[in-house]
Amino acid sequence: MRPDEARSRLARLGFGAEDVDSLAAHFLEAEARGQLGHGVSRIEWLETWTELNTAARPSRIEAEPGYERWDGGGALGYLTLEAVVRAQLDDPPARARLVVCSRTFPTGSLGYWVRRLADAGLVGVLTATSPRRLAHPEGGEQLAGTNPLAIAIPSSDGAPVVSDVSMGAVTYGAVLAGHARPEELVPFGGPLAHKAFALAVGLQLLVDALNPEDGYGAVLLVARPEADPVPSLRALAGGVRLPGSRARP
Amino acid sequence: MRPDEARSRLARLGFGAEDVDSLAAHFLEAEARGQLGHGVSRIEWLETWTELNTAARPSRIEAEPGYERWDGGGALGYLTLEAVVRAQLDDPPARARLVVCSRTFPTGSLGYWVRRLADAGLVGVLTATSPRRLAHPEGGEQLAGTNPLAIAIPSSDGAPVVSDVSMGAVTYGAVLAGHARPEELVPFGGPLAHKAFALAVGLQLLVDALNPEDGYGAVLLVARPEADPVPSLRALAGGVRLPGSRARP
Repeated sequence: MRPDEARSRLARLGFGAEDVDSLAAHFLEAEARGQLGHGVSRIEWLETWTELNTAARPSRIEAEPGYERWDGGGALGYLTLEAVVRAQLDDPPARARLVVCSRTFPTGSLGYWVRRLADAGLVGVLTATSPRRLAHPEGGEQLAGTNPLAIAIPSSDGAPVVSDVSMGAVTYGAVLAGHARPEELVPFGGPLAHKAFALAVGLQLLVDALNPEDGYGAVLLVARPEADPVPSLRALAGGVRLPGSRARP
Repeated sequence: MRPDEARSRLARLGFGAEDVDSLAAHFLEAEARGQLGHGVSRIEWLETWTELNTAARPSRIEAEPGYERWDGGGALGYLTLEAVVRAQLDDPPARARLVVCSRTFPTGSLGYWVRRLADAGLVGVLTATSPRRLAHPEGGEQLAGTNPLAIAIPSSDGAPVVSDVSMGAVTYGAVLAGHARPEELVPFGGPLAHKAFALAVGLQLLVDALNPEDGYGAVLLVARPEADPVPSLRALAGGVRLPGSRARP
């Protein structure tokens, strides 16, 4: 499908105007950054869902200093993260806040959500679980999702650094699209793939241990920065591109 | 040096009895787990320091709900993390707490510190910065430390999972010991090494953004678990070893 069809096809699925805007913004930003597996192809994927509850709303279940818990309530994980990000921007933590998101799937391009926090001057770290697709490099059952870790750091020069790394050697989207074979969906690292496997297992258990509900979830750390390390690192890097700093086309 | 010399040689460096116990426990546990680069060879390394302030004490500079900041105050990073871990065990967070550690170096085996939290039923996530040794896979300046990420998850079966992953293909300790060549100290991942590089840069900037002081630092997240995901993952894994679950010799 073409990007300019995104809004009309989301509306046809039954999403309200505000959700159409939120979803389209995520998918179109992923397209613009070349993350096609998180782009408008996902609208075609949503069109195959037999149960898509477009009226469901995420909600904040608990709020304490330094901690929040949200529940997707049957809404798409994208919309839960949209609500969570807006809530953090509306009321940033005094210092730091851990946000646990239950029943939150799919979560899309994690860098997209934390970049918005960094654009507003906040540090963001986000991980999320997804179907188990990674086995130990030596074999056995698929034990962990590709479980990305996204870290966004604001910068006084206006260009945050956003590191967004999945633990898979290829994406599941690439397999779905026929660009990669299923057997290529392994922890990245070749002879050191046990490292990416360990990260995937650690992040999976982190989400699963903090989330009291069954199902996929996400864990977000939001914090106020106390320093501005990006400009000096960028100067040291010279011509080397820092993660997530590619200009949008 | 032999492990049984650890205590006497630490005492000869001028450390008090309690610090000798704390340092020896860390180094000997690293030896027992086969992490020789974090083991008693580090005592020989400390013996080469020209300025070793054995009287310095770490202190908690700030404490708010969900947030603490500590300063090493010239003490070894090991002793700052020892004090931080003990403080979390003495007064665990109601839900979650971010602990930022300034002037904290060296930090040793990060898995050691979070394992102690998990042994007491707490979730722990820890990262720390160290000298810049990793360049972008395509070249340029060394921009990031090997910056490990350690994640420890408690388990009702008594055996926490501890994932402790450095972003380097080899350790600096291995280079120092002559077991690896300096040019092997690159981000792990081979053709996907940009992923480990991005993680190293993201973790570096995370610590540097949260730490208001110059110098190396550490960031620890401590949280109470809301679920017990390890036993079911271990059952699913069957004979596959989960990270950090190897029995000590």
